[in-house]
Amino acid sequence: MKSLSEKAALNLAAIRKKKPLIHNITNYVVMNYTANALLAMGASPVMAHALNEVEEMVSFAGALVLNIGTLNDDWIASMIKAGKKASELQTPIIFDPVGSGATSLRTRAAKKIIQETRISVIRGNASEILSLRQEDSKTKGVDSIHAVEAAVEPARILAGELGTVLAVTGPTDLITDGEQMIRVSNGHPLMGYVTGTGCAATATIGAFLSVDVDPVSATATALAFFGLAGEVAGKNALAPGSFMIAILDALYTITPEELKGNCKFEDRSSQ
Amino acid sequence: MKSLSEKAALNLAAIRKKKPLIHNITNYVVMNYTANALLAMGASPVMAHALNEVEEMVSFAGALVLNIGTLNDDWIASMIKAGKKASELQTPIIFDPVGSGATSLRTRAAKKIIQETRISVIRGNASEILSLRQEDSKTKGVDSIHAVEAAVEPARILAGELGTVLAVTGPTDLITDGEQMIRVSNGHPLMGYVTGTGCAATATIGAFLSVDVDPVSATATALAFFGLAGEVAGKNALAPGSFMIAILDALYTITPEELKGNCKFEDRSSQ
Amino acid sequence: MKSLSEKAALNLAAIRKKKPLIHNITNYVVMNYTANALLAMGASPVMAHALNEVEEMVSFAGALVLNIGTLNDDWIASMIKAGKKASELQTPIIFDPVGSGATSLRTRAAKKIIQETRISVIRGNASEILSLRQEDSKTKGVDSIHAVEAAVEPARILAGELGTVLAVTGPTDLITDGEQMIRVSNGHPLMGYVTGTGCAATATIGAFLSVDVDPVSATATALAFFGLAGEVAGKNALAPGSFMIAILDALYTITPEELKGNCKFEDRSSQ
Repeated sequence: MKSLSEKAALNLAAIRKKKPLIHNITNYVVMNYTANALLAMGASPVMAHALNEVEEMVSFAGALVLNIGTLNDDWIASMIKAGKKASELQTPIIFDPVGSGATSLRTRAAKKIIQETRISVIRGNASEILSLRQEDSKTKGVDSIHAVEAAVEPARILAGELGTVLAVTGPTDLITDGEQMIRVSNGHPLMGYVTGTGCAATATIGAFLSVDVDPVSATATALAFFGLAGEVAGKNALAPGSFMIAILDALYTITPEELKGNCKFEDRSSQ
Repeated sequence: MKSLSEKAALNLAAIRKKKPLIHNITNYVVMNYTANALLAMGASPVMAHALNEVEEMVSFAGALVLNIGTLNDDWIASMIKAGKKASELQTPIIFDPVGSGATSLRTRAAKKIIQETRISVIRGNASEILSLRQEDSKTKGVDSIHAVEAAVEPARILAGELGTVLAVTGPTDLITDGEQMIRVSNGHPLMGYVTGTGCAATATIGAFLSVDVDPVSATATALAFFGLAGEVAGKNALAPGSFMIAILDALYTITPEELKGNCKFEDRSSQ
Repeated sequence: MKSLSEKAALNLAAIRKKKPLIHNITNYVVMNYTANALLAMGASPVMAHALNEVEEMVSFAGALVLNIGTLNDDWIASMIKAGKKASELQTPIIFDPVGSGATSLRTRAAKKIIQETRISVIRGNASEILSLRQEDSKTKGVDSIHAVEAAVEPARILAGELGTVLAVTGPTDLITDGEQMIRVSNGHPLMGYVTGTGCAATATIGAFLSVDVDPVSATATALAFFGLAGEVAGKNALAPGSFMIAILDALYTITPEELKGNCKFEDRSSQ
């Protein structure tokens, strides 16, 4: 078996070569940044949300990205319709439950999307991921590094129950399918000062899912790549505006070889 | 009573410390820039507009920002619903009547929002603010510095009638509650070449309202801060693209102490 | 008759002087970048899509930009309503059929908009433009330089049939009204790595149409200008993030004189 770092390099090279079409139904705030991030890394983004178009569009796509950041009932219906079609076609779906746990509309929508479609990966912060559990344990206030540590066991259990890969992101990212538990610690503190870095990380996972059939390695390598782009950006950019632009630059300039040499993985699957 | 410059420093420090949640129902064009501006200065933006979510979301917020830049009937309904809930909770509301006076839909929507909710501050250019008067005096063409001078007395009267603070922005900003009349002359000419600087100024007022109970000082200090960010940005950035990024950087890097030393206030309340 | 390069300089100078209002009904992804591009070059963008507002708004505008990048049925209805009003007022319309040919919703919407309004110019890549032909020839996969060469004769015929100017953009842009055939080769390869450069080129044509009654020269000079902005940006910016910001800077800094000296036109009308 190849090492995860080698896999990361292969995945990035495959994206640059194949330019996979990534279909996004995402929020208004991050549409532009997400599209630019996907283009910069070598993928081909398309944004399309009309109920009478999403099935046709997703049938061309290498992956479907669903994100409820500025949801309403119409957009949820489109996400579910696109998600069902993607499920039928065995096209991987990555879901970002933005704000799940914060309002009941978001929590309900997230659970409904998960129930009605076959999702490969869900990425969110600890509060968002833990809000997806059946028992409606209030997780608000759970935050950052502490949250990640507290989320390890609940996330492992939940991944098993849902039969999906969960990515709990924070200073250290956890990726688990219920058995494996991989940590990725690439990243930069300024990422928290730019809107849509989480959503762009989700879209990056989408691109990696389109070239890697293993959702655990696709997710871990995508998060290492996106986090490394933050690290590269943070070397010269010292404030959020120039930093967010430098991330786009880094997504374009990082080579597979550089990625391979700078992934920060830790595999605790056997603990 | 503290000087306004000292208040500016205290407000900025409070935002950086408390990271207030600012709920925005704003236009598609500026959502990303607004969110990034709020994050850069230290606040926590959330964008949510669904009719069946806004009441719950605004109940967590330190301020509500309403902006009709790309309005339609559904969005107006959500703004009013969120605004009523905020009024009930005594959460401050800042309103940006983008394009009021230009089309009848906008003028009507603006007046309806003002009538049905308890707004703390309205920010707009002279045409927009003066279009809010009962008598439907055509104000189109009123522009820039001349407009600001011409707007002084009408704005003072209108603020008294509406029982709200008005901020008429331009090369010099006027802030009045019907009695006080403060001028702020921080800013930079390139701001007129970047979309959403006015809307981001409005959101900045939202952040300051969440930490300062006096809407006059919150507004004046917010506009001084945002204008100073423009000045700092304009020192190195000579064209609109790099300038808009440099504003985000400046919102992050300006310290309370720097802000205190560079506010350009003029108080003509007693004239 | 003035040379096209002289016309380019005159058009740019006229935009900077008159600051024409350009009404855009465009997609969520590019609204911000389009508005910033128009502002940077000297025009005045407005985004407005409400069915009960578009007629009034377009009546103030120097040109109407229609773009179906994130269409749904409501937005199509607004585009047609605005387009009919613009047609009646003889306000020039520029149409960007994003993704026409990719899904049936887009192809149908594009054809309907063309049929129900009086469009001056349509800009798209070869696949999009050729999808507008009556016979529903599948053009997907047609791409880049090869596509442009293959598109020459079909585009000339289609322009004649539709009675409109077509701009088929790619490494070399073709502009034809069915008789004239002008090529523009300004541009930079990094433009393909930034979302919305095509849409911003369309909006630029809108600004040029508002000051130049000849849609062929308006389109050719607009594409030369936008392409030159890419060239200027590409001199210092080597990756997509900084490149997209440098384009905005260049749209602001390029003088009419510089534009005149750097247009890359080739007129093959008589071939």
